[in-house]
Amino acid sequence: MFYTDGKLQYPVRVERPNPHFARALQQAIGGVEGEIRVALQYMFQAFGARGPAKYRDMLLNTATEELGHIEMLSTAVALNLENAPLSFQEEVSADAMGGVVLNGMDMRHILSTGLAALPSDANGVPFDCSHVYASGNLAADMYANVTAESSGRVLAVRLYNMTDDPGMKDMLSFLIARDTMHQQQWLAAIEDMGGAVENLPIPNSFPQSQEAGEHSYAYFRHMVDGSIPEGRWSAGPSMDGRAEFTAVKSVPMGDKPSLAPARPDGGAQAQQSSKSGTTGLLGKVEGAIERNL
Amino acid sequence: MFYTDGKLQYPVRVERPNPHFARALQQAIGGVEGEIRVALQYMFQAFGARGPAKYRDMLLNTATEELGHIEMLSTAVALNLENAPLSFQEEVSADAMGGVVLNGMDMRHILSTGLAALPSDANGVPFDCSHVYASGNLAADMYANVTAESSGRVLAVRLYNMTDDPGMKDMLSFLIARDTMHQQQWLAAIEDMGGAVENLPIPNSFPQSQEAGEHSYAYFRHMVDGSIPEGRWSAGPSMDGRAEFTAVKSVPMGDKPSLAPARPDGGAQAQQSSKSGTTGLLGKVEGAIERNL
Amino acid sequence: MFYTDGKLQYPVRVERPNPHFARALQQAIGGVEGEIRVALQYMFQAFGARGPAKYRDMLLNTATEELGHIEMLSTAVALNLENAPLSFQEEVSADAMGGVVLNGMDMRHILSTGLAALPSDANGVPFDCSHVYASGNLAADMYANVTAESSGRVLAVRLYNMTDDPGMKDMLSFLIARDTMHQQQWLAAIEDMGGAVENLPIPNSFPQSQEAGEHSYAYFRHMVDGSIPEGRWSAGPSMDGRAEFTAVKSVPMGDKPSLAPARPDGGAQAQQSSKSGTTGLLGKVEGAIERNL
Amino acid sequence: MFYTDGKLQYPVRVERPNPHFARALQQAIGGVEGEIRVALQYMFQAFGARGPAKYRDMLLNTATEELGHIEMLSTAVALNLENAPLSFQEEVSADAMGGVVLNGMDMRHILSTGLAALPSDANGVPFDCSHVYASGNLAADMYANVTAESSGRVLAVRLYNMTDDPGMKDMLSFLIARDTMHQQQWLAAIEDMGGAVENLPIPNSFPQSQEAGEHSYAYFRHMVDGSIPEGRWSAGPSMDGRAEFTAVKSVPMGDKPSLAPARPDGGAQAQQSSKSGTTGLLGKVEGAIERNL
Amino acid sequence: MFYTDGKLQYPVRVERPNPHFARALQQAIGGVEGEIRVALQYMFQAFGARGPAKYRDMLLNTATEELGHIEMLSTAVALNLENAPLSFQEEVSADAMGGVVLNGMDMRHILSTGLAALPSDANGVPFDCSHVYASGNLAADMYANVTAESSGRVLAVRLYNMTDDPGMKDMLSFLIARDTMHQQQWLAAIEDMGGAVENLPIPNSFPQSQEAGEHSYAYFRHMVDGSIPEGRWSAGPSMDGRAEFTAVKSVPMGDKPSLAPARPDGGAQAQQSSKSGTTGLLGKVEGAIERNL
Amino acid sequence: MFYTDGKLQYPVRVERPNPHFARALQQAIGGVEGEIRVALQYMFQAFGARGPAKYRDMLLNTATEELGHIEMLSTAVALNLENAPLSFQEEVSADAMGGVVLNGMDMRHILSTGLAALPSDANGVPFDCSHVYASGNLAADMYANVTAESSGRVLAVRLYNMTDDPGMKDMLSFLIARDTMHQQQWLAAIEDMGGAVENLPIPNSFPQSQEAGEHSYAYFRHMVDGSIPEGRWSAGPSMDGRAEFTAVKSVPMGDKPSLAPARPDGGAQAQQSSKSGTTGLLGKVEGAIERNL
Repeated sequence: MFYTDGKLQYPVRVERPNPHFARALQQAIGGVEGEIRVALQYMFQAFGARGPAKYRDMLLNTATEELGHIEMLSTAVALNLENAPLSFQEEVSADAMGGVVLNGMDMRHILSTGLAALPSDANGVPFDCSHVYASGNLAADMYANVTAESSGRVLAVRLYNMTDDPGMKDMLSFLIARDTMHQQQWLAAIEDMGGAVENLPIPNSFPQSQEAGEHSYAYFRHMVDGSIPEGRWSAGPSMDGRAEFTAVKSVPMGDKPSLAPARPDGGAQAQQSSKSGTTGLLGKVEGAIERNL
Repeated sequence: MFYTDGKLQYPVRVERPNPHFARALQQAIGGVEGEIRVALQYMFQAFGARGPAKYRDMLLNTATEELGHIEMLSTAVALNLENAPLSFQEEVSADAMGGVVLNGMDMRHILSTGLAALPSDANGVPFDCSHVYASGNLAADMYANVTAESSGRVLAVRLYNMTDDPGMKDMLSFLIARDTMHQQQWLAAIEDMGGAVENLPIPNSFPQSQEAGEHSYAYFRHMVDGSIPEGRWSAGPSMDGRAEFTAVKSVPMGDKPSLAPARPDGGAQAQQSSKSGTTGLLGKVEGAIERNL
Repeated sequence: MFYTDGKLQYPVRVERPNPHFARALQQAIGGVEGEIRVALQYMFQAFGARGPAKYRDMLLNTATEELGHIEMLSTAVALNLENAPLSFQEEVSADAMGGVVLNGMDMRHILSTGLAALPSDANGVPFDCSHVYASGNLAADMYANVTAESSGRVLAVRLYNMTDDPGMKDMLSFLIARDTMHQQQWLAAIEDMGGAVENLPIPNSFPQSQEAGEHSYAYFRHMVDGSIPEGRWSAGPSMDGRAEFTAVKSVPMGDKPSLAPARPDGGAQAQQSSKSGTTGLLGKVEGAIERNL
Repeated sequence: MFYTDGKLQYPVRVERPNPHFARALQQAIGGVEGEIRVALQYMFQAFGARGPAKYRDMLLNTATEELGHIEMLSTAVALNLENAPLSFQEEVSADAMGGVVLNGMDMRHILSTGLAALPSDANGVPFDCSHVYASGNLAADMYANVTAESSGRVLAVRLYNMTDDPGMKDMLSFLIARDTMHQQQWLAAIEDMGGAVENLPIPNSFPQSQEAGEHSYAYFRHMVDGSIPEGRWSAGPSMDGRAEFTAVKSVPMGDKPSLAPARPDGGAQAQQSSKSGTTGLLGKVEGAIERNL
Repeated sequence: MFYTDGKLQYPVRVERPNPHFARALQQAIGGVEGEIRVALQYMFQAFGARGPAKYRDMLLNTATEELGHIEMLSTAVALNLENAPLSFQEEVSADAMGGVVLNGMDMRHILSTGLAALPSDANGVPFDCSHVYASGNLAADMYANVTAESSGRVLAVRLYNMTDDPGMKDMLSFLIARDTMHQQQWLAAIEDMGGAVENLPIPNSFPQSQEAGEHSYAYFRHMVDGSIPEGRWSAGPSMDGRAEFTAVKSVPMGDKPSLAPARPDGGAQAQQSSKSGTTGLLGKVEGAIERNL
Repeated sequence: MFYTDGKLQYPVRVERPNPHFARALQQAIGGVEGEIRVALQYMFQAFGARGPAKYRDMLLNTATEELGHIEMLSTAVALNLENAPLSFQEEVSADAMGGVVLNGMDMRHILSTGLAALPSDANGVPFDCSHVYASGNLAADMYANVTAESSGRVLAVRLYNMTDDPGMKDMLSFLIARDTMHQQQWLAAIEDMGGAVENLPIPNSFPQSQEAGEHSYAYFRHMVDGSIPEGRWSAGPSMDGRAEFTAVKSVPMGDKPSLAPARPDGGAQAQQSSKSGTTGLLGKVEGAIERNL
């Protein structure tokens, strides 16, 4: 169960409203790198967490923090839109740079929200919850969270570099710091679970004896010229210390697949009822036509 | 540029076709944990790779391998569907368990493909490319890839445990092994780039001096009772060794946000034109009605 | 900014876990009638609220309550899945009705979450935020909220009627009661804003003198036989008391639209370069072919 | 069954084609506030209408009118695009304001349609039919329709205020008038069904004695400081006249949820097999590793 | 502008309601092969039709017919649902086959519509208008329409073969016949435009002299073993009679692509700032860390 | 199984990077007319191909070519973005035309990819695999492929006309040529299968004797004024030579549909429990209210 105080976690201040930057900020709200995603992701991971209770508590706690980030960014969008042009007439009468503002805006900030944030990305594509990764496997989820906070911090840094509004830079410096912590936090959770090696391969509950072990530490080469991009992955001890990396040419172990011919009542063409073509083919067609008359 | 030989990377054999398992396999083709996703994800990461060329080559190479996994799984779906019922009549005439097969199937395997795979998940939701994570930041991408291979292996293990068909178990033991390797591979790439610590925080090209550093290693507590789920994240040295974790109560640093009243031509209600309600409110409404007459 | 205590707003108890009902419950989490929708909808309405502050506070307050409903329902899903079959083998060994459970389940409850809730509907379609209606117009939003709580209560009633588990019936009786209150609450907010009539037509800030008033209270009849379904809408005083309803035959006031021919470099067929067809047409094609050689 | 005469319901005239406004108009075609939505929504409500036939007839009749609005707006889009620039060269050669037209356009108006309308919104996001609300409950549907016509009229007003083209203003004054009528119409339908109170709570076919009645008229307060935004909803008689509103502090009635540990074959980490962490945890991991060798 | 008479184009009769078949029929309503798609596709092609007016008229006319098919199929769905089970209790009390009905149903037919059709496919995925193909090129559109009617008739045939209800078979025999006609109709339109050859390549308004003509009639072989699937496409006169088909080995004409290194403020990792890796790499990282302190 | 050499099928050269054109190119990558679509479409058609093996081989071969086109276009996008502005400051300092570049760009090219391609269209809408048409019917699929290559070539021509960069024009002249060939190739495949007539109606395996033959070659007129757009489709021999086209007035053969009243536990309003309204209606409501008390 949740509570609020209606206040902002960190001050949100806009000195020079910029409707174009409002659109950029949308990516941090409803983009795949954004705050709706992490809030819901940590929440659903918590709701489905099986195992030691502390992970559930921690996930729920940070999900709750992220809700406040949606609030901060939505406020930032609304403030950046305060002076946005509402008509083509205003646009023309404005100064040279102002004249192009309407082009750079998300028009739905005028048409659909009346100068407020949307739960969408910078292109107006609504966030969809298929991006809420909650696998029921804590280690897989922790890496999903490191990923979310990495792409989230990359985005926040790009927004920071894009704007020169001191208020916006201040707000983003806070969000960047929180992303730093959250990267640390999810990596710390893996450590708390015994460390990266102990958790590999994910899921670590499946006996490795049942996998086709001869292919478990081999870098497969698919370059037609046989070349191989060498690196830490192509030789030396594996990351879990249980084997040596090798680099092997990938060759087909299977044949060309061969499906049964189409069944008569399956809606295929008559010609698909046998596996070979040519003469049999035309006979098939004639038969089908005859049958139809 | 790409080539093929039309053969399967690994043999795909189905002893007892099971249309219901065909539907489950769809998750590994078009689900967010599936092979279309990794094939396209590694491909787009390669296409946009800036920096040392070997990472591009490696990404492209493994993307090419993943294309063959889509092929294997699609073949497995088609083979599992070979004897699927095409009508309610067949269903009734079948044995007790067979009678329920039609219920468990993806009906689009009959209606839309004529007994073949779809680029969709186990619920028939088509894969959409918003799940192709290619951020332009190699470290963020590597963690995205570890995540993809972790949730991919979790899925493959669940499919392995679900079926008792020896052919399917064999195929899945191969895919599970490849997921093991690919988890290793992306972690090895991070090592190749200098190791996890060197790459933190992601992006490591942004000067940490510009972030609000006092919040960068603090676990914020949002529990109303002040409790704290203790763990590796709440105390001790940070994962990057540059600070100590602390656990602090989260308190609002900002005020309640206050937006300007609605503008007259913005399509809001007349009552929204001032920030306060009560008496002024009714006056506003009366004015609006008057103006309308 | 938000807080939590990690506890459930109302007890969630499942006496006889039913994985099929778990799938039904998903509609109340990630369906368009569900709780993610109302939580985010009230939140974004609050974040963008312009005008008297109390509406913002009230919206944010109830958004916060709805977050707890997602938590309750997700817990209910997880509990209904506790004994779900994980393989076809278990299924066969089970009793007659149990044997069909796997067919009725959302397979992603096994494959993607390891027996936990998804932010998706009963068909596994993920919630997408285009359903978060926050128009910047308070009256339009209040009706959107009445709608959400109406379809939400309809859904909760159907779930209540579907199950015979006492624990689930108890939880749903609570959610149904809350939906009752929330229907009241949004209607009360309209009253608080001056009442339904004062707020019509929405938006009430646009001078009705500027609309084509002769069509503003007319029921247009599009039945080819001229019939008219009579009701409160076809005669008598209008709902806002400002006019009388009439029922008029709809006749086209405009002509057939006529667009300019296709421009030569617009990627159309050569035949589309004039408005008339027949002889000129073939000449066009010949010319195009000639030009191409 | 349907008929057409190929003519426009109301004249569509564009004096100064504006490709940027063409993009804005898309919101009224394929946006969630747009005409495809209402046409299909009223249609599906009619197709599934159970109960008195007149509601079905009325819904179908107005659905048919809305189809003509899609036609009008699509024509308006095409006419606004007649002189759109097709290349960057044209853009540069144009006058100062004309030079930015290509930036403001929906590029798919060039690339995908050859200067015609798309069934998408102002950001190019295609309309999707999850927005067709047809619940099988007439009262819920009527409120959904009031909502659709409210957000539709808000949008039309914003478009009216955005343009200064007399032809477009004329067309929009007609559509705004029709939205006025349709708001009236759906409210009239509720009156026709016995009035707002008789229809509450929706669905009114569920015995209120079965809901947890002590929570049915209570405003739950989730503000941590105990404050309460007072209004018509927090005290006084309820809107249906059956109770008094109260405002109560929301406290958890349930405990922290507690799920069973992860099952061994469910693809979780080994560490999730018990509810407690610490020492048992490492033992678990060691066991899992041992089992794997 | 459109009209209706509220009657069905063809009788819809269900002798033995089958909720599972109701779900299958959904594919013909909201599937990519379904009737919403063709209705809207022909409509938008008409709305944007440039060139001879008769094509617009014909498209609009048939779009109007298709609207009636949505009506027929939606009625068929509702009738197939009349006796559907609404609860698990009913299910258990039913006969052996009836007991599994609830598993095969689209649960949203109960939960979301109260036993009526959805604008979604057989898996409950809502139709989305990205499938409305209207390219502004009449020939491309005609082939899109042939495709839509081909996959539509394939689907109708599969539904016909799936059911043994005489009423449903009768309705489908009508829809199948209409699909036959519409396949003919769109092919006839291509003939009307001068025939298949005259219209190739589409668009025929682009001078073929400007394309890289040496690659215009060559079958490129991408099989690593050099094999070639021979057929009408690999030798002999081209379909437009303007050239001979050849089959050539595909070899890269370009080099490995080489992008510039990442820019310093672009949010990449520091390691991506140069094109080469190894020693320079570590220096980069150290520099970045230093800069951060 | 697949291979690569990491080289481009055709050289990709950009003389004057244009971030706005980069956005336009996205349509050819992730648009419905784009290369991800054809690559996956031909691939899934191959994976599910039943019947003569040569069609599978040919489809797989060309799918493999199309993968290389995604690579070419993604490289073109990245090269067009090399000098893109990363901040509003750069924008202002640039020249007049450069000042508007940021408005015309896809902002996610900065925010989400760091100057590289997305698997999305020109409006940033991600490609979704519902557009991968693979019906299990070879003839339907061939027409789907002709459609894809037609709209693909229309798009490529529009891009060619839009740019004046010699490198981009060169690349597009190659892609246009390949689209020419692929249109030929799929039409040749139909010829290889016996020709267009032999394959009609699709599917040709369904006995035409079972369709409602009297409606199979009739153009149904839905114009209220009885007019008819005459053309090849309204008279003369049918395209398959088996009948004569006729043009008949469309009249309803069915009645108004009549569904059963709403069931008591189906979540409808009480008023929907009978088919007639008026007096009975109010009685119903009163009863419902009574029952609730």
